[in-house]
Amino acid sequence: MQTDLSDTIIALSTPPGIGAIGIIRLSGPKAIKLVDQVFFGRNLTKVEGNTVHYGKIKDENDRILDECMATVFRTPKSYTREDVVELSCHGSPYILNQVIQLLIRMGIRQAEPGEFTLRAFLNGQLDLSQAEAVADLIASDSSASHDLAMKQMRGGFSNEIQRLRQELIDFASLIELELDFAEEDVQFADRTKLKALVEKIQGVIRQLLSSFQLGNVLKQGVSTVIAGKPNAGKSTLLNAMLQEERAIVSDIAGTTRDTIEATLNIEGIQFRLIDTAGIRDARDKIEAFGVERTMEAIQASTIVLYVIDVIETSQQKLIEELKAFNIQNSKFIIVLNKMDLNPYTKPEDYYSEDWITSDNVITTSALNKMNIDYLKEQLFNLVISDKSLMDHTIVSNSRHYEALTRAAESLDAVDSGLKTGISSDFVAMDIRQALHYLGEITGEISTDDLLGNIFSKFCIGK
Amino acid sequence: MQTDLSDTIIALSTPPGIGAIGIIRLSGPKAIKLVDQVFFGRNLTKVEGNTVHYGKIKDENDRILDECMATVFRTPKSYTREDVVELSCHGSPYILNQVIQLLIRMGIRQAEPGEFTLRAFLNGQLDLSQAEAVADLIASDSSASHDLAMKQMRGGFSNEIQRLRQELIDFASLIELELDFAEEDVQFADRTKLKALVEKIQGVIRQLLSSFQLGNVLKQGVSTVIAGKPNAGKSTLLNAMLQEERAIVSDIAGTTRDTIEATLNIEGIQFRLIDTAGIRDARDKIEAFGVERTMEAIQASTIVLYVIDVIETSQQKLIEELKAFNIQNSKFIIVLNKMDLNPYTKPEDYYSEDWITSDNVITTSALNKMNIDYLKEQLFNLVISDKSLMDHTIVSNSRHYEALTRAAESLDAVDSGLKTGISSDFVAMDIRQALHYLGEITGEISTDDLLGNIFSKFCIGK
Repeated sequence: MQTDLSDTIIALSTPPGIGAIGIIRLSGPKAIKLVDQVFFGRNLTKVEGNTVHYGKIKDENDRILDECMATVFRTPKSYTREDVVELSCHGSPYILNQVIQLLIRMGIRQAEPGEFTLRAFLNGQLDLSQAEAVADLIASDSSASHDLAMKQMRGGFSNEIQRLRQELIDFASLIELELDFAEEDVQFADRTKLKALVEKIQGVIRQLLSSFQLGNVLKQGVSTVIAGKPNAGKSTLLNAMLQEERAIVSDIAGTTRDTIEATLNIEGIQFRLIDTAGIRDARDKIEAFGVERTMEAIQASTIVLYVIDVIETSQQKLIEELKAFNIQNSKFIIVLNKMDLNPYTKPEDYYSEDWITSDNVITTSALNKMNIDYLKEQLFNLVISDKSLMDHTIVSNSRHYEALTRAAESLDAVDSGLKTGISSDFVAMDIRQALHYLGEITGEISTDDLLGNIFSKFCIGK
Repeated sequence: MQTDLSDTIIALSTPPGIGAIGIIRLSGPKAIKLVDQVFFGRNLTKVEGNTVHYGKIKDENDRILDECMATVFRTPKSYTREDVVELSCHGSPYILNQVIQLLIRMGIRQAEPGEFTLRAFLNGQLDLSQAEAVADLIASDSSASHDLAMKQMRGGFSNEIQRLRQELIDFASLIELELDFAEEDVQFADRTKLKALVEKIQGVIRQLLSSFQLGNVLKQGVSTVIAGKPNAGKSTLLNAMLQEERAIVSDIAGTTRDTIEATLNIEGIQFRLIDTAGIRDARDKIEAFGVERTMEAIQASTIVLYVIDVIETSQQKLIEELKAFNIQNSKFIIVLNKMDLNPYTKPEDYYSEDWITSDNVITTSALNKMNIDYLKEQLFNLVISDKSLMDHTIVSNSRHYEALTRAAESLDAVDSGLKTGISSDFVAMDIRQALHYLGEITGEISTDDLLGNIFSKFCIGK
């Protein structure tokens, strides 16, 4: 991880491959000067920031590599807060490579993944959690994951964390001051106020921690297994939900041997639907493999849609099946399918104590697409019990989750230290720990390892 | 093909996929006004051309779709000579699609492939052959194909064609004038000067037509087959030329069963090297298939490198082999391989009449990489007998080749018409034909079909 800001970096910022336009981005103290040496059309060292200019890029032998547009950004008004040049070239990988190689020969260094955003962070343009959100934003593929990343990039909870951390720092310095006057046994820091602050921060952290599961769901999607006996109509249900012919459907039991995955977007949340081979005693080797994969898929999933054929399956048989596959330990919805064949079936007939109730039983006819929208609604509700939750601050990054967990532990120690009245230096140490973990989220505390870890996951050119 | 310029078009101009940056390009009378309605940060309708501005894109529900940079170009100072906006967004396909969909909902039309360049042509920014060169430039993958496209884009031979065509138009109008005064039997057009002009144009066209083969080679690369009996060292030679282990090499005859293709760049020209299965009587089915493919590869190739093992193969045997495979009808180089095993072999021993001479026999040791650079030089010379040719005007586009051929035919008719002294209206008709074909090259004459044909091969967004 390069935290040296004295050199100038270059990278292709658009996806690889042939396209109409390819953008080469440079950042650093020599960006404008060095590009100007190979750019003919306008003296870039004399133009204003945020302006675009047409010119030709020529190599050392006066060969024209491309005609392109150069956009000049001047420090600090740029993404990295450094001088930045973006060259908009013809989107030929050959040409883009020639231009990059020319500039590298002139002493510009190939950027590492995420190095532009790293510089934006190091130069104070973004805090660390905002920088991380940039990568999430680029990877976002649904309205929920997009909103989440956008919120985090625009400040999100890091402002709040920063504010609370600042209050805690104030107390910490008072307590550290007490240590300097240890012999005199004075208390600069008001213990009651400190206790109140610690509790307030703990409250915020608890709320953030509890949002993590939801955050993960919004970011990664919800893995949802469609399970049930052969010929219950699982593949037909998948197709009905997707409104397309995704799975091969036939009335021969065991048609679907491998797991099939498809993505369904319900109100902005991605559900990754996994259709499975029929669960039954293996008849041949391939089938056995399929059943095993179904069992694994159920274990790994967040939600199980358990489909039965109402003609074939009684309440008692259903309960046996659910128990056999340990499904009562998952979040699940029971789909009473093939209602078209027996319109008199009532969901109530399948209720059992408090774990099979109106909350998780739905009658459908996958064939006639009956109740499919209602099923989708129930799926959404199972994940987001309260829709307004999505407007709250949500943690989706496991690094943040871990730092918050550790900060909470340190604050617990502060809390119990205050209760038992242990000596100030232990309290001070625990506060410092908590400050450290909170600071890791926003990047006020960072190490090269931490930065390397975060930015190496970025794309090149960002 | 849309030749209506009154609407505003939009497309993603960077390659599809995840990247740091994605560029959305808009062109047309409403480009700036409509983007301004969803762009918050700066009033784009009031900014100067060639400037870049930071802002947020919000949809109808005030949801932030992205934070991005908008570059504004004002007519006629833009690629299309229309008002153009380029939005530099985060490179998430999801976000880019959301932004494009938003603008399409506002009444902007999705651009067809090449439609921005089509507009540049229709608005007089580029002539047709220059527009075609833009696509060639994007597809260029070697220094030769790149130079060729760059030269054509920067004017190339179309300036010359345009000038000659204008001279011919002047004559044509004089002759048409004669037709109006047909009864009076006057001659406004000097037949001697016309004849001289026709001959001059024919000379230029002949030269351009003769450059086409070279043009094609520069653009497409040279297909080069490495053939020879099993165990002559073909794969070793391929590896030596590529300086890498590309083919599986063993001393068991028949190791290479399929054809192997690799690309070798010699002084900017791409040679597509095709290693082949050994040519011999098929022993089993797979081998038979391999031999058949070798024969096909030889037929389809531009150059054959015929490799022999000097220990195993006498001059007489070599000639038999060459004749058996009809190689004397191709451009070929005979590689006397395994010189390391018999350093006393002389190329002269293999000369035969005037078709196996010092021009096309080379001794090598592929194993010891002996004479490999010399072999590459000979390969280059076989394609480009005169290196300075590459600096001349070269035709590489088969559409241009066809138009030039037809123009030449029409001019031949004019020429013989002048000789036999046929009536002016026939001469006028032939001149109009020639003008038509010459005009097709630069686009002064174009039809919707022709434009559709050319621009549909472009990428979207260019």
